[in-house]
This record gives sequence, C-alpha cells and structure tokens, in this order.
Amino acid sequence: MEAFSDGVFAIAITLLVLDIMVPHDAGAHLARSVAGLWPSYLGYLVSFSTIGAIWLGHNAITDYLERADAVFMRLNLLLLLVVAFLPFPTRLFADFLGEDKPERVATNIYGISLLVASTLLLVLWRYAVRERLVRPDAADEEIQLLTQRLTPSLVGYLVLIVVGLFAPIVAAVGYLVVALFLILPIRVRDIIRFRRRRRAQR
Amino acid sequence: MEAFSDGVFAIAITLLVLDIMVPHDAGAHLARSVAGLWPSYLGYLVSFSTIGAIWLGHNAITDYLERADAVFMRLNLLLLLVVAFLPFPTRLFADFLGEDKPERVATNIYGISLLVASTLLLVLWRYAVRERLVRPDAADEEIQLLTQRLTPSLVGYLVLIVVGLFAPIVAAVGYLVVALFLILPIRVRDIIRFRRRRRAQR
Amino acid sequence: MEAFSDGVFAIAITLLVLDIMVPHDAGAHLARSVAGLWPSYLGYLVSFSTIGAIWLGHNAITDYLERADAVFMRLNLLLLLVVAFLPFPTRLFADFLGEDKPERVATNIYGISLLVASTLLLVLWRYAVRERLVRPDAADEEIQLLTQRLTPSLVGYLVLIVVGLFAPIVAAVGYLVVALFLILPIRVRDIIRFRRRRRAQR
Amino acid sequence: MEAFSDGVFAIAITLLVLDIMVPHDAGAHLARSVAGLWPSYLGYLVSFSTIGAIWLGHNAITDYLERADAVFMRLNLLLLLVVAFLPFPTRLFADFLGEDKPERVATNIYGISLLVASTLLLVLWRYAVRERLVRPDAADEEIQLLTQRLTPSLVGYLVLIVVGLFAPIVAAVGYLVVALFLILPIRVRDIIRFRRRRRAQR
Repeated sequence: MEAFSDGVFAIAITLLVLDIMVPHDAGAHLARSVAGLWPSYLGYLVSFSTIGAIWLGHNAITDYLERADAVFMRLNLLLLLVVAFLPFPTRLFADFLGEDKPERVATNIYGISLLVASTLLLVLWRYAVRERLVRPDAADEEIQLLTQRLTPSLVGYLVLIVVGLFAPIVAAVGYLVVALFLILPIRVRDIIRFRRRRRAQR
Repeated sequence: MEAFSDGVFAIAITLLVLDIMVPHDAGAHLARSVAGLWPSYLGYLVSFSTIGAIWLGHNAITDYLERADAVFMRLNLLLLLVVAFLPFPTRLFADFLGEDKPERVATNIYGISLLVASTLLLVLWRYAVRERLVRPDAADEEIQLLTQRLTPSLVGYLVLIVVGLFAPIVAAVGYLVVALFLILPIRVRDIIRFRRRRRAQR
Repeated sequence: MEAFSDGVFAIAITLLVLDIMVPHDAGAHLARSVAGLWPSYLGYLVSFSTIGAIWLGHNAITDYLERADAVFMRLNLLLLLVVAFLPFPTRLFADFLGEDKPERVATNIYGISLLVASTLLLVLWRYAVRERLVRPDAADEEIQLLTQRLTPSLVGYLVLIVVGLFAPIVAAVGYLVVALFLILPIRVRDIIRFRRRRRAQR
Repeated sequence: MEAFSDGVFAIAITLLVLDIMVPHDAGAHLARSVAGLWPSYLGYLVSFSTIGAIWLGHNAITDYLERADAVFMRLNLLLLLVVAFLPFPTRLFADFLGEDKPERVATNIYGISLLVASTLLLVLWRYAVRERLVRPDAADEEIQLLTQRLTPSLVGYLVLIVVGLFAPIVAAVGYLVVALFLILPIRVRDIIRFRRRRRAQR
C-alpha cells in the first residue's frame, strides 16, 4: 500500500509541471512571456507544497501505523483520488488568476479541493487512532501532536475560501502560507529546541 | 515484479486527470464550463475506482502468492497492458458522453475495456490457484472467497454492455456501481461483523 | 537502483497511452475513427511488449546480480535514457504508418530505437558477466541461457530494418513478433516441459 | 522518503520525452523534420543526464545517511521541487534554441535552473554532514570526496550562464559536458585503478 501511495503522490506532484506552458509564438518577448506565467509558478509552488505537506503527513501516519484494515485501505484510496485530482484545479487556478470574474470561481474550486484533501488526511488519521491501528508504543502525546498538526489548516482553508470570494489573490497567497505552515512548523521548532539543548550540553 | 506493477497502477490512475480540461476561452462562464465537464468527472471517478479495485484485487493476489512462475509474469504483463490502456477509453467516454450516437460507441468501448481488465485479473488469480503458486497455509475458504469476489463483476459488465446499446448513461452509472461494489463489499461487512463481535465481548 | 529503474520502465510503458488520440470532431463516425487508429494500437502493443520484454530481461539481470559497480550504474542509466525515449519513435510510427513515404522513415527510426535499446540490454548483461558482478552460485548454463535469449532479437531487428525500407508494414508486424518472441519463449517451454514431467510422475 | 524521491526523479526524467514532438503536417519531409528537432534531442540529453547525475548524487547521499531529521526532509522536498520543475526550462530551451534573441533568455533560464538544482543537492549533503546524519563508519576521506565531486559543477554552471549571454549554443554544449562530467568521473577512474590493482594481484 505504501509503494502505491508514494507512487501516486510522486506522480501527481511531478505532473504539475506539464501545465506550465509558454506560447510557441512568444518569440521576441520571451523574457516577458516567461515572467507573465507567474500564476502558473504560484500554482506549481502551492500545489507542490500542499501535496508535499500531505505526503509528509501521510508518511507520519504510516510510520505510526501497525496494521491497516480494509476501511483504512479504502479511505486511503479516497485520499489518493483527491490528491491525484489536484493537478486539474491547479491548472484552472493558473489559467484564470488575473482574469477578473473567473478568477474567483477558479480560486475557490482550488481552495475547496485543498480543503477536501486535507480533511481526508485528518479523517484517515483519526480513523487509524480510533480503530487502534497505530503502534501500541506510540505515546498519547505524539498522537495528539499529529492530530493538532493536521487540524488547524482546515480552519485556514475555510477562512481563505471566504476571503477568495472578495480578494482571490489574497486567498492564493494564503494557500501558499498554509502549505508552508504545514511543511515547516512544530518539528522545525523541535529541531531548534533540540539543537539549543545540544549546545547547552557542550 | 510488485514494484513495477504498483508503479504501472499508480501511473495509470494518476494520468487520468490529464484528460480533464477546461477550454481556455471558458472565461466569463467558468463556473458553467466547469460544471459542464461532468462526463469527465464521472469518467475520472469510474476509472479511478475501477483501477483502484483492480489494484486492491492484485494486491490481495500477490499477498497470497508464494512464488511467481514465468507464465504468471506474462499474464501479469498482459493485465498491465490493459490497465495502462484504460486512460484511452476513459477519454473517449468523457469526450462523447451526452453526444447522441457516438455516446453508445464510446460507452461500450469503455465497458468492454473494463470487462477485459477484470477478466484478466480473474484469469491471473485462477492460474495462480491452479498452478499452486499460492501460499500453502492459505485456507481453501479464503481462496474461494477471493474467487467469488472477482467473478460477479464480469456478469455485471456483460449486462451493462448490453444496457449501453440502449441507454448509455444508465450503463455509465452502472460501471460506477460495479467499481464501488468491487471496492466496498465483503471485507467491509467482515469489519462490521468484527466490530460488533468486539463490542459484544466488552 | 532497482526502484529507480523499475520506475522509469513503468512510467515509459504507461506514457505510451497518451499518444492514442481520437480527433474531437470524430463525432458521427466515432466507431470508424476509433478503428482507424489501428497504427496507434499496433504501436502501443509493440512498444508495450518491447519495453515489457526489456524489463523482464533487466529483471533477470538484476536477479543474477550480486553487486553493481559504477560503470554498471552508468550503462544502466544509458539503457534507461533509450527506454524513456521510446515513446517518441512510437508516436512517429503511429502517426505516419499508412502514409506512403514518411512511413518508411518513421518505421526505420522506430526499428533503430528498438535495436539500440535491446543492444544496450545485452551490453549491460555482458558487462556484468565479464566483470563478475553476477552471483557466484549462478550456473554457467544459466548465464549462457540468458545471453542466448538476449542475442537473436538483435539479428531480427537488423533484418527488419532492411525489410522496412521496402515494406514498412511487414517490418511493423515483425517488430511485434520479435517482442512476443522475447516475452514468450524458452521459459514457457521450460514450464511446459516441467508440467509434463510432473504429470509423468503421478 | 527514498521511494518517494526515487519516484519523483524517475517521473521527471521520463516526462522529458513528452516535449519532443513532430508537427503532424511534417509528412513528405519527415526525415528532415525529425533531424530539425535536434534542439529537442539536445535538451532531452542534457536534462536526462543532469537529472541522472543529481539522482546518482542523491543516491550516494542516502547511502551514507544513517537517519534523516525534519530539516533534511524539507530540504529534500525543496530539491525535488526544483528537479520536478526541470522539464519546463528544458522545453523552453528546446523550443527557442536557434531563434536568435529568445535563445539567450531560454538558455540562461535553463542554466540557472540546473545551477539551483545542483546547489540544493550540495546544500542537502553539507547539511547531512554538519548535522552528523551520515553513518559514523563513513571515512572522512569518503565524505570529502563526495563534497568535492558535487562542488565544481556549480562553478561550471556560473561560467556557462555568463557564456550563454554571448554564445547560447556554446553554453548548451557546456551543460552537456558538465552533466557527463558529473556522471562519469572519479568513480570510473577508481574502477580503472581497482581493476589494474586486481590484474596486478594475479
């Protein structure tokens, strides 16, 4: 199951680049054309970071997992269905950012997709905890830490979807911040704390 | 062999999203254009579920497998040939659903492809059982259970191919039902039974 | 190295389907349009079989391998470079088969690509044998058997490239025959012999 | 983490072929059209070699690694973000090589991308060394050897980016030389030395 899941994550994350395209007639103004693709780069960055964050979370979950039951396998497949779908809203987002009205539609379809993917990751984890699929030696605090880490982004997405109705570009930047927040925090802080401690011990 | 097979399944399932496309001139009516892509979403859902179901079945087979002989390897390659081909009939199905006459052709090509893929999975399993490639400690009931689980969908596909000649959209929904039936049943029921038992023991 | 190689084989083999396309205006004559894509199906079949055969050979090589040195790693990367390139000549082949003059060019570019890929597989194997990278417990006969199995297809390709100058369609069918010959023989015969022996023992 | 990284490398390297395309109307002059695609082949060759070289380096790093901390995982993800992006500058490079002015822009965007990817690989390695994530039994010389192997290409890229402002085609060939330099040296020399020693012992 892990090899298959890792495969889907890796492919979905790598397919994102196929949607970044320069028009063949860009010719004389290539530098400007390439710069004008910033919505595509933003979409690539946000989706790569989000899929990367979900993969890191998924990785943490399977690390804690002792065994998988049939329902877990199906929930996992449902998560993969949404993750493998993400290149489509990303393309919408990149194509229509900057175009007044469709911009709102595209940004919110994008936000809702990210929300659904993150929710399913949390559902997968909570199911594993409730059904006692996690390793018995995992400390309760560790389990709570992971739950706490997966939860706040959902609130973030909900807020940003509302923001997206009025200021799509703000929501777009917000999605990047949420992804970076998912990728960076807690553990990095742990590392910093750990390194301080190590220095103190010298 | 498993890594390669898992790779092909994972890639075929993730490539499906490349066929969902919004016309670049959708502009002002983006919401309507995105909603109008429902045949693409249906195709994505059915093909993802079907490939997912075949992968779950393939996974169960390789779990029971003690060793693979040369014929098994070739049958497996033949199954992968058909699975890797599925994005093509899916695209046909998504492109022509809703267009009177071609709709029937597209839906039936799609159904026949699903039938062939599912048949090959069953052939792979029956070959493994007949040639005693399965682990000797696998109970006869377990082996029969998997055979029973892989068989009825074939009948379903045959019926739906005939239905597709008259009512393509009914057949389309039918293919989704078969896929969900393949993904969900038996084991979920086992789980529910198991959980009831566990509660009773408390 | 194996995971990476298996990944490249799996992706190259699965990308082949992306080149099978029905024109969006096929509409009323969909069945005829789909049937008219036979060069694409032939290309898919030949390339899938050939990449599958090379993968089976690669698999056999890595099975016999005890360790890999730096040159082996580079030769392997060179083989992957050619295998990952195969979807391009396949597309050429499928696009121009049936079109008088370009047909010959496309078929021969295709044949040369298959020849180069197969040659590199043999070079990889001979290097491994010469540098004693194979497991010491591998019998000399087994090693010769694999060498014999990888060699004759090269002669086949050379003949077919010449044939392709006069009768491209014959060469096209020939490439399929070579691929099936690579996938099927020897071992299947061994199996049949083995099963006869087993029956005789009863 | 390794399976996911290997997957991204394998997919990025295999997607490169999708950008090599012959115009459908090439017809009568197919041989000339195929020959006219040389910038695409050069791009394929350089990017395949570069991604291959980065993968070999990444492979060497994970071989020396005893454990990965959270920062290492994020740095790795950042490297993958750039590697998975490489097909885009490759396409730019292939599309505009030979077209006077845009050629310079495209070649330099390409060179900068290669520089960033190679720099991140070196950063990943230096981080692993500094944080003592490498296996304690790895000799200091080995560690220094890998550092030395990853460093000079950065200087090469910097020089070539400047060259690219005046002579893009020279820079293009230079990128190929750097990739081959990354793939071939040191270890091959080690092997040759090792084989000489082995012969001397006989």
